[in-house]
Amino acid sequence: MDGLKKYSQQYKEELLGSVIPFWMENSIDKEYGGYFTCLNRYGKVYDTDKFIWLQGRQVWFFAMAYNMIEKKPEWLDMALGGAEFLKKYGTDAEGNWYFSLTREGKPLIQPYNIFSDCFAAMAFGELYKATKDEEHKIIAQNSFINILKRKGNPKGIYNKSYPGTRPLKGFSLPMILCNLSLIMEEILGKFTVDQLVQLLITEVTETFYSEEYGLILENVPLNGNVSDSFEERLVNPGHANESMWFLMDLAVRRNNKALLDKAIAILLRSTEFGWDKEYGGIFYFRDIKGHPTEQLAWDQKLWWVHIESMIAMLKAYKLTGNEACKKWFETLHDYTWSHFKDPEYPEWFGYLNRYGKPILDLKGGKWKGCFHLPRGLFEIWKMTE
Amino acid sequence: MDGLKKYSQQYKEELLGSVIPFWMENSIDKEYGGYFTCLNRYGKVYDTDKFIWLQGRQVWFFAMAYNMIEKKPEWLDMALGGAEFLKKYGTDAEGNWYFSLTREGKPLIQPYNIFSDCFAAMAFGELYKATKDEEHKIIAQNSFINILKRKGNPKGIYNKSYPGTRPLKGFSLPMILCNLSLIMEEILGKFTVDQLVQLLITEVTETFYSEEYGLILENVPLNGNVSDSFEERLVNPGHANESMWFLMDLAVRRNNKALLDKAIAILLRSTEFGWDKEYGGIFYFRDIKGHPTEQLAWDQKLWWVHIESMIAMLKAYKLTGNEACKKWFETLHDYTWSHFKDPEYPEWFGYLNRYGKPILDLKGGKWKGCFHLPRGLFEIWKMTE
Repeated sequence: MDGLKKYSQQYKEELLGSVIPFWMENSIDKEYGGYFTCLNRYGKVYDTDKFIWLQGRQVWFFAMAYNMIEKKPEWLDMALGGAEFLKKYGTDAEGNWYFSLTREGKPLIQPYNIFSDCFAAMAFGELYKATKDEEHKIIAQNSFINILKRKGNPKGIYNKSYPGTRPLKGFSLPMILCNLSLIMEEILGKFTVDQLVQLLITEVTETFYSEEYGLILENVPLNGNVSDSFEERLVNPGHANESMWFLMDLAVRRNNKALLDKAIAILLRSTEFGWDKEYGGIFYFRDIKGHPTEQLAWDQKLWWVHIESMIAMLKAYKLTGNEACKKWFETLHDYTWSHFKDPEYPEWFGYLNRYGKPILDLKGGKWKGCFHLPRGLFEIWKMTE
Repeated sequence: MDGLKKYSQQYKEELLGSVIPFWMENSIDKEYGGYFTCLNRYGKVYDTDKFIWLQGRQVWFFAMAYNMIEKKPEWLDMALGGAEFLKKYGTDAEGNWYFSLTREGKPLIQPYNIFSDCFAAMAFGELYKATKDEEHKIIAQNSFINILKRKGNPKGIYNKSYPGTRPLKGFSLPMILCNLSLIMEEILGKFTVDQLVQLLITEVTETFYSEEYGLILENVPLNGNVSDSFEERLVNPGHANESMWFLMDLAVRRNNKALLDKAIAILLRSTEFGWDKEYGGIFYFRDIKGHPTEQLAWDQKLWWVHIESMIAMLKAYKLTGNEACKKWFETLHDYTWSHFKDPEYPEWFGYLNRYGKPILDLKGGKWKGCFHLPRGLFEIWKMTE
């Protein structure tokens, strides 16, 4: 890892000395259980609602830290605190995970969002590795089975598309399953994971891959009838980049050099397409044909986009020695540390405008929790060590 | 109108010489009927989907222009072209208006959005005044009855809130009904409109008005149990300002000076709260307590916000001679013309970043059509004449 070892200490210290302490100190709800995730610049709670995505992701992160970094009892306790809250209040009678709950655990928003189920499965799947508690295994297993069952129509009764006119499927679900299936391997078994992974690789590299543009599309027609619509023109470069490091993990697992090369080619193409040549940083959204997007926030720079892209570039370089990836890692590292890290208080800003200035004075919210930043710091620390 | 008469010609010319011709030339779908609204900077179509909000609003505008400006046959034809398309394809079997259709008229998105019904009623209500066609009257009437029927739970089966935990109602519907009920008076009759208006005035000035802040809230609890949530802290100054000119119309109708004064007080407070003291313009959203909003586009400057605020300030000045309102009208006029008007091509930009620079290179899209700008140009032209 020529010249990259110098980064190792920086990422490790930021994780262990700043980011983990921020969430340990500010996010625990001692009264009702679970986590506060709406934390302002100084770590103070500004909203107490509990979002299942972020509850699950934080359980996953602390269980993973316990499993992979150090067996610290307070990390396991942190994960168990969130898991207890999720177990008690998180699902409806059929085991579907709500989208959000009040601070006390009353359901607020119905289970319309299958990613709540994904992050819950991820949480209990990782936690089971630490606890070997059968109950954790069963929750993870049932949630995963439920995801596969709902995969064909993830929004169920909340789907607002008129049946048949323009049925689309989204990239997010196969993308997340690439990562989730590996986390759940101990529970699902190698055979199931192998079969699933084969399907997912085809989906990502064929179904959602546009040969013409060399890019990953966010939405594709279910029936093959492509139309020239906002949804089908949408590119989310951060999503594509994140999925490329999941795909590299699968390529390593299958010892598949062609898959690895394809993932790296897409990663490079997607980063070049997403990069803001005027002001730096990667755009949140772009229209593949260059038309206006329907997303008003399209030109903003989001923390997770940059962190996931760094992981992907570093992984690509580590696996193949590709110099373009090394260079991109360093460009992204410079942009990310100089724009997202709050120079005065712990944790990072999440949302910058096109010019790199924070537009929201928060460290956590409805969508930003204890996940992308600490996971990224961990991955990069370990890869550069 | 001391010193405001000079504006009259400017608004009239922009409307008749530039904006109306832009939509006449670029938006008619000669093959399938209805309107294209996704038009790029030069007026070229970049997406052909048809959104019921914008189809209805464009029918309304051209019918209104025919009724109020001049009996030009091509304006009536334009309105009729959209109305025919809406009649043929716009509703499901129960008469609920879809949210969007394909270019050919196939339903794309289900009738989850009650504002589709509002703009359809507005369209056929105004068109009826021009045509005296019973069919137009019946469509307007049925759509209006349907809105009142769905008012308690506007999203129906697509409502994702868990019943009972935190039932909220939104400001948009009573706000739009203030305007719509006057447009429909010929159809609904004076007695019905009087009764409805009384209810709406109470809703706007009491239910959604925060005494503590002097501001209009976007969402309030249905059961009186206020909670400290993202939704209940949300302020949309443009919405508040637009509704204040609807309220002034109602105050004039009822000859109610106290109501007029209240509307003007709220308008001034809301504009001061929404005004960006650093870069000018009115923010899209703000949190009433100053916390981060969940809307990433909160600091953007939108065309309709500024146009509706200009109408409101001018109306307030015209009705009362309030000098603060005159000053605000001139401040808004200067900001709006120097930032939203495209200096090179017809029609205006819709979406600016905080610093006043266009972030989307479009004249029309999924939410911006032939409505706020021409309506605002017309209202201000007439008020300054």
